[in-house]
Amino acid sequence: MICLNEAQTCALISHQLAYQAVKEAFIAASSDEATIFPVVNASGPQSDSMFSIKSASTATLVGWKTGTYWPGNHDRGIPCHGTTIFLLSPETGELVATVAASKVNAYRTAAADAVAVDYLARPDASVLTVFGTGHQAEYEVLAIATVRKLSRVIIVGRDEARRDQFITRLIVQGIPVVAGSAQYGCEQADIIVTATAAKAPLFQSHWVKPGTHISAMGADKNGKQELPVEIYPRAKLFCDYHSQSVVIGEYQHTSNTEIREIGAVITGRSPGRVSPEDITVFDSSGIAIQDLFVAKKLLNAQKGVVSP
Amino acid sequence: MICLNEAQTCALISHQLAYQAVKEAFIAASSDEATIFPVVNASGPQSDSMFSIKSASTATLVGWKTGTYWPGNHDRGIPCHGTTIFLLSPETGELVATVAASKVNAYRTAAADAVAVDYLARPDASVLTVFGTGHQAEYEVLAIATVRKLSRVIIVGRDEARRDQFITRLIVQGIPVVAGSAQYGCEQADIIVTATAAKAPLFQSHWVKPGTHISAMGADKNGKQELPVEIYPRAKLFCDYHSQSVVIGEYQHTSNTEIREIGAVITGRSPGRVSPEDITVFDSSGIAIQDLFVAKKLLNAQKGVVSP
Repeated sequence: MICLNEAQTCALISHQLAYQAVKEAFIAASSDEATIFPVVNASGPQSDSMFSIKSASTATLVGWKTGTYWPGNHDRGIPCHGTTIFLLSPETGELVATVAASKVNAYRTAAADAVAVDYLARPDASVLTVFGTGHQAEYEVLAIATVRKLSRVIIVGRDEARRDQFITRLIVQGIPVVAGSAQYGCEQADIIVTATAAKAPLFQSHWVKPGTHISAMGADKNGKQELPVEIYPRAKLFCDYHSQSVVIGEYQHTSNTEIREIGAVITGRSPGRVSPEDITVFDSSGIAIQDLFVAKKLLNAQKGVVSP
Repeated sequence: MICLNEAQTCALISHQLAYQAVKEAFIAASSDEATIFPVVNASGPQSDSMFSIKSASTATLVGWKTGTYWPGNHDRGIPCHGTTIFLLSPETGELVATVAASKVNAYRTAAADAVAVDYLARPDASVLTVFGTGHQAEYEVLAIATVRKLSRVIIVGRDEARRDQFITRLIVQGIPVVAGSAQYGCEQADIIVTATAAKAPLFQSHWVKPGTHISAMGADKNGKQELPVEIYPRAKLFCDYHSQSVVIGEYQHTSNTEIREIGAVITGRSPGRVSPEDITVFDSSGIAIQDLFVAKKLLNAQKGVVSP
């Protein structure tokens, strides 16, 4: 069995690696060979501690991701969230790898939105508006900056201090970034990314101009919502995995049945954006297949490090 | 993170270690602090390949067991079944150990029945009848031999060649063993262990004499059954974990609500055997908490090896 620790995977991960892995995962997810199994939502003995186990199988990859959230870690000065990916051999079922992936998880989630932007946003899209100022939002901006030339990034956040800290971190990395209101951000945007834990719409539908692409990543549980339902009749809808997206993803709030999987768009089996005036919406509910493909790419990259 | 491989755990495991671990697990399982989460039953890409993920949490242990069954392994000359146990830190949620436990799993399952025999069979019980001649049956005999002085072991099996091979293996280990019919085995037995994949009763209730203890380990899925339902009105019923036993264990076939957890018997909160004439039945449906306690004991034993 191969074990990659957090330091190793931090050294190996990049937005490019995550993009390739997630793109391949989306293609696999929309094939007949992929299966996603029921999610285990479990708790630990410490107050409010919890962990989840998300498993999947494709023709070439079998395994699961365990995500942990121990809020008491904050007082210990260590991260509250943790992620590990486990791979079984598809040939024999043997445990072949454990891959520490706490930082990797942020890249993998951002990569999903970047793949959607790459395939669904207008080629000339250059203004990105991000709702959210948390840890994940930074990865979203940097991942999308690898697939579109961004002339401006507008950050929308309720907490001004957090927002300004976030803007400062982006400026240091050479990103042309400003703060803005929700309405201003929507009116200006070619691309909108929502990266929040919201349970109600973050903006109004009529603020969104024709031609905009929206990647929504926050909704991954019953009751979560980032987008106004009024956007759906105006938009073409896409997701990572249909049966999950309509249950725990953003599309739990729509009865529109025309929702296409991004994997089918990538392979050309489904149309994506047809006109520069289309509004496209992508819901990233987060699927275990992404984690398996990222782990596999990290293991291959590690082999390259060990035996060049 | 600590990794124990199969060779290490094979060297560390014993019936005594498994007995202690499972006994502690049963006590924890019947406490308010323990939670067992829904089982994931998943499949691999290879024909008929499957894996399960069984997770649990107690005050001191958090984790899960992954069991794999890849039938194509038979042609590769490697075991079809595989087991690995994973432990998270209860304090921080971090992955602290992976423990290869394929052979250990047989000890752990046998230990459950041995604990039940120890607490529920008559002190003078000496004749053991085993239904089943598979891999697990041998571990059952050896585990029970550590808690009762066995004057005779009677093996009941449909396949005579397999049965005789099994008997030969036991004789070599100094066990006084003979073959017998189902009726003869029941009539002679002080202790009956059923270790089969049966989906219908293995014997008739009236063959079982007063004072007998029965440990049934085969039923772990909907539709499995080893015992005749006519035994229930005659018997006192015990199990490892009530809510699981009545759904996937042997007690899916009874509506008798008086079923006690063995952990409560061990701690004295529930009565066990009251009279030498009692028939006692224990259903071992198999719970993840057993695996967590076994893994912890193996890790402690390994520490003893490394730093005596």
